[in-house]
Amino acid sequence: MQNQTRIVIENVLPQLDGGIYPIKRIVNQIVVVTADVFSDGHDVIECCVKFKHQDDKKWQEVRMVPKVNDEWEATFKVEKQGCYTYFVEGWVDYALNWQHGTERKIQDNQYVKSELLEGAEYVSAIKDLANASEKEYLETVANYFVNESDYDKAIQEALSPKLHKIFKKYPILFLENKSLELEVYVDREKALFSTWYEFFPRSASQEEGKHGTFKDCEKLLPRVARMGFDTLYFPPIHPIGEVNRKGKNNATNAEYGDVGSPWGIGSQYGGHKSIHPELGTIDDFKSLVKTAKKLGIEVAMDYALQAAPDHPYVKDFPQWFKWRPDGTVQYAENPPKKYQDIQPIYFESSDWKNLWQELLDVALYWIEECDIKIFRVDNPHTKPFFFWGWLISEIKKKHPDVLFLAEAFTRPKIMNELAKQGFSQSYTYFTWRNTKSELIEYVTELTQSEQKEFYRPNFWPNTPDINPLALQNGNESIHLQKYFLAATLSSSVGIYGPVFEYQISAPMAPGKEEYLDSEKYEFVKWDWKKQNKITTLITRINSIRKIQISLQQTNNIVFCETNNDQVLAYYKFDDENKNKTFMVVSLNAFHTIQATVKIPNELLIELPLKITDLITDNKYIWNKEFNFVELSPDLPFHLFNIE
Amino acid sequence: MQNQTRIVIENVLPQLDGGIYPIKRIVNQIVVVTADVFSDGHDVIECCVKFKHQDDKKWQEVRMVPKVNDEWEATFKVEKQGCYTYFVEGWVDYALNWQHGTERKIQDNQYVKSELLEGAEYVSAIKDLANASEKEYLETVANYFVNESDYDKAIQEALSPKLHKIFKKYPILFLENKSLELEVYVDREKALFSTWYEFFPRSASQEEGKHGTFKDCEKLLPRVARMGFDTLYFPPIHPIGEVNRKGKNNATNAEYGDVGSPWGIGSQYGGHKSIHPELGTIDDFKSLVKTAKKLGIEVAMDYALQAAPDHPYVKDFPQWFKWRPDGTVQYAENPPKKYQDIQPIYFESSDWKNLWQELLDVALYWIEECDIKIFRVDNPHTKPFFFWGWLISEIKKKHPDVLFLAEAFTRPKIMNELAKQGFSQSYTYFTWRNTKSELIEYVTELTQSEQKEFYRPNFWPNTPDINPLALQNGNESIHLQKYFLAATLSSSVGIYGPVFEYQISAPMAPGKEEYLDSEKYEFVKWDWKKQNKITTLITRINSIRKIQISLQQTNNIVFCETNNDQVLAYYKFDDENKNKTFMVVSLNAFHTIQATVKIPNELLIELPLKITDLITDNKYIWNKEFNFVELSPDLPFHLFNIE
Repeated sequence: MQNQTRIVIENVLPQLDGGIYPIKRIVNQIVVVTADVFSDGHDVIECCVKFKHQDDKKWQEVRMVPKVNDEWEATFKVEKQGCYTYFVEGWVDYALNWQHGTERKIQDNQYVKSELLEGAEYVSAIKDLANASEKEYLETVANYFVNESDYDKAIQEALSPKLHKIFKKYPILFLENKSLELEVYVDREKALFSTWYEFFPRSASQEEGKHGTFKDCEKLLPRVARMGFDTLYFPPIHPIGEVNRKGKNNATNAEYGDVGSPWGIGSQYGGHKSIHPELGTIDDFKSLVKTAKKLGIEVAMDYALQAAPDHPYVKDFPQWFKWRPDGTVQYAENPPKKYQDIQPIYFESSDWKNLWQELLDVALYWIEECDIKIFRVDNPHTKPFFFWGWLISEIKKKHPDVLFLAEAFTRPKIMNELAKQGFSQSYTYFTWRNTKSELIEYVTELTQSEQKEFYRPNFWPNTPDINPLALQNGNESIHLQKYFLAATLSSSVGIYGPVFEYQISAPMAPGKEEYLDSEKYEFVKWDWKKQNKITTLITRINSIRKIQISLQQTNNIVFCETNNDQVLAYYKFDDENKNKTFMVVSLNAFHTIQATVKIPNELLIELPLKITDLITDNKYIWNKEFNFVELSPDLPFHLFNIE
Repeated sequence: MQNQTRIVIENVLPQLDGGIYPIKRIVNQIVVVTADVFSDGHDVIECCVKFKHQDDKKWQEVRMVPKVNDEWEATFKVEKQGCYTYFVEGWVDYALNWQHGTERKIQDNQYVKSELLEGAEYVSAIKDLANASEKEYLETVANYFVNESDYDKAIQEALSPKLHKIFKKYPILFLENKSLELEVYVDREKALFSTWYEFFPRSASQEEGKHGTFKDCEKLLPRVARMGFDTLYFPPIHPIGEVNRKGKNNATNAEYGDVGSPWGIGSQYGGHKSIHPELGTIDDFKSLVKTAKKLGIEVAMDYALQAAPDHPYVKDFPQWFKWRPDGTVQYAENPPKKYQDIQPIYFESSDWKNLWQELLDVALYWIEECDIKIFRVDNPHTKPFFFWGWLISEIKKKHPDVLFLAEAFTRPKIMNELAKQGFSQSYTYFTWRNTKSELIEYVTELTQSEQKEFYRPNFWPNTPDINPLALQNGNESIHLQKYFLAATLSSSVGIYGPVFEYQISAPMAPGKEEYLDSEKYEFVKWDWKKQNKITTLITRINSIRKIQISLQQTNNIVFCETNNDQVLAYYKFDDENKNKTFMVVSLNAFHTIQATVKIPNELLIELPLKITDLITDNKYIWNKEFNFVELSPDLPFHLFNIE
């Protein structure tokens, strides 16, 4: 292919899979773009990043600056929700090149009359772009350049920073080149900074033996708000299948009165657009959502694409399920295991376009009818990736505020792919990262690898599906430690509420990570008034997160050396370096331990550091590179603000 | 975008810059393709690499095998010159998935009648693709599957490896997905394995004070062949400019009788398609090329795109040069330096298409008229990259045998870009890599990074432009060492002949890497009959390279531990592991030194090793992991063949 440009632009970063997928940001975050830009020969080149919001007509521009080895860099800020496009443009800057070469010749005492004539041409070329005062200056300069009698003044102006600045301001693009266009999708702030609380609405009643309702839930909202949570996530609230319903502790057959698993969706009372009658009415739910909103809480719904055998879809749209040669329907299975209370959606169906549309309509229903803006998606990794890409982008077109949390605890590349397809947040392996080295390795991967551009972690110490070994029979200290780690390592954090607060952790069987008497199959009466050290410190940590903006993001983190394998220390800062926090955590839940903590290099120049432990309000001055800490199981962490 | 496939294919490697540039191979090399391939859920998936030569109509296929973490791999061989396309295709294999699930259920003692009916459908679907005996078998199996009375036989066949093999052989593609198509350009063997000798034809005369001719050169061919060189490269052989001609030692003004620089091309006697009259005629040159060919030597021409002031182009095509506002032509310059014997081509010219065509015609002239198949391109990094991409691909379309060596000693990304644009071989920084760690680091970069896919290094210990500090005043041993390193680390190697053999290394000025009395500006009378230890060992090394195929490639190299910073050891092997060589080199040109060398892990299982030093024919048996070596400046290396 013939192309006369002399500029090569390669390796434009950030870039995912050749630009197929957008990177992600939230409003007012920055994008640091780097690229290899070079030309043949030794001429002066210039390059810039051009970027534009989807609703804008004009490109904005920011000039790149050279780093080492032909790599250039520029930074821009994304100020609006939605999709931005960006690309790199480069050109040989003949005017600047002329100035650079002429300067060297003048310094070498060469006679540059011919060069000045050439310079006059560059000056004239931009005269009409310049403002009035610049134009006047350029006309003067051009006159000097062409009049031999003004030679001395001419060579003075040829070298002037003023002329350089004007050349730089009005580049003459000639044979420029541009990179491919890349995209960054910008979400609202909550995509990055969120504090989740999960409970089962049917356990919301304060009366023993009574099925909870939305009205009961509404009464619990002030408590959730007081504890500093901004997102309240409920397991599915749709009618629960009655056919093949599961009994307590996942028994294959329910007994009379068993309430079943809320993930077995659909019954005579309706499907994914209906409310489970025992929870209340759609109006009760709307009222709950509205009250929550007033308290600063968003209700997150579960989006679980599967059907109980008595889901209306099975009769109305049999083509959306797989039928076996013997005429029976295909239950969910993971051979040799069978799950007869659940029928998977048959995404290979030839009627897939209608199926996709209906599934989209389900989400739109809750968004448009009940003002739902957050979905926690159940098992997204068992549905086609491109379905998610389509669904999420369709929803975002109309409702850019809507966020999706991917509930997938599976292989790393599959979890990454879901994030690339558009999930706003993702569950993580944090739940199983216990030692210092495991935690450092994992967080480093999330924040330093390509993942940082598209994978927004949400750290959950537990979920109804995971009663982690580390918490089983765990004491108060380990619960404090886990919540603190989750809430300060990651800007998004969540807990499966009462179970965590009250340290309930008996497993269904030794070595299994399932809860005994799990709320997945029965409802429970909790003492919703109870307060303890765990609830108190969760409240404290959550309130600190609201003020310390360095904790409202995940990627700006530096792990710090400590001389104790059970003491983890890390430093966080915001994009503009206005807020700095420094965390020290003991991973020993049983003994008081000491360590020497090294200040990160970034902070050494700021010694002595005035620091305040935001948990205790104790103030310290650290004036050395290495500092002593002692942490007891009673309060196994420091959360320092650095002045 | 709606797309029903469940398969994701990402990160297909090798892949350069999103597939814009082809990777490179020579005939009969292998391409190892890896990709991340996965589906939602837990179904069995399959994937393959499909590949096709540009002249073929049918795709060939090789099935991929899973490695760790959803990465798959397959290998194919490129057997013909030209361009191959390859891509990855993946699908959920429903038949294999059925077999996998059914097997688990049978092992769990479940009754699988319904599964067998489903299996019968998979069997029927491929019946017509199978050969006669397979078809008979499939019909039997299908009957078992549908007849309840054959249940025992049915479950036996359902699990059979035979059925598995047939399912695997005839996949039913449904909702498959494919990656983007990538390219590999396949050259003839010489692109990878070549041994270059450079001399100035005007120094070929055996008579003192006489300008050498092609006829003189022809007489030297047997010597070049005897020494084992297969590529003879001449600096430009075109008429040398008479205007502003350079004098001896790069003097600005030539004196009477000065022959000028052959890179100052063009005079009253013609330009790039002409022969410098003092060298002889076009027929002399053709005869030389023909005689060389008979001796197994290819003549490589210099392709230097620049003009002396009296080049015919300047008058005939003034638009191909840059004219200054004062009406004078733009000389080459690197301000404040000026090179008035040279005018650069003005690639920004609006007449660029005709210019490019003419430059292409120049190359085609020598290819088609004189059977030239190799060009050493002078300063390619001062001409536009996309020009080279176009020129090389245009030439390769008609003449796939033609090879290009990029003479660029410049910034790394620029050298890489030239290779990506199609240069078959490239000069390297080897010339300045002296210490053990420098050599290991550089060769590791060339052979382990992405560069291995497109950058074919040619190691030159010296060139007429570079009299490296390491060789200045260097003794015989350092010359032996440098040639040995170049010829065994890299499969392509070259020397600027007589100067190297006769250890001539006086610099033009202390600290400068220019030769004093450089042949670039004058001709020299060499004693072409002289033989010494350097010529003898070059001959020996070159003859070994012709037999040991592990030395005919560069990438398969493993550096081995030694306990001496001045002893470098490395192991090389061919793609099929048929030939293995092991090199040990002393980097000390003055003292005898010892070291313990560690056998690479790959060879430990083969202990004891029977090894033969191919330089001395000494035989050894190494039966330990660590082995003693002693090397003296007299013979500073071992070149072992491993039996």
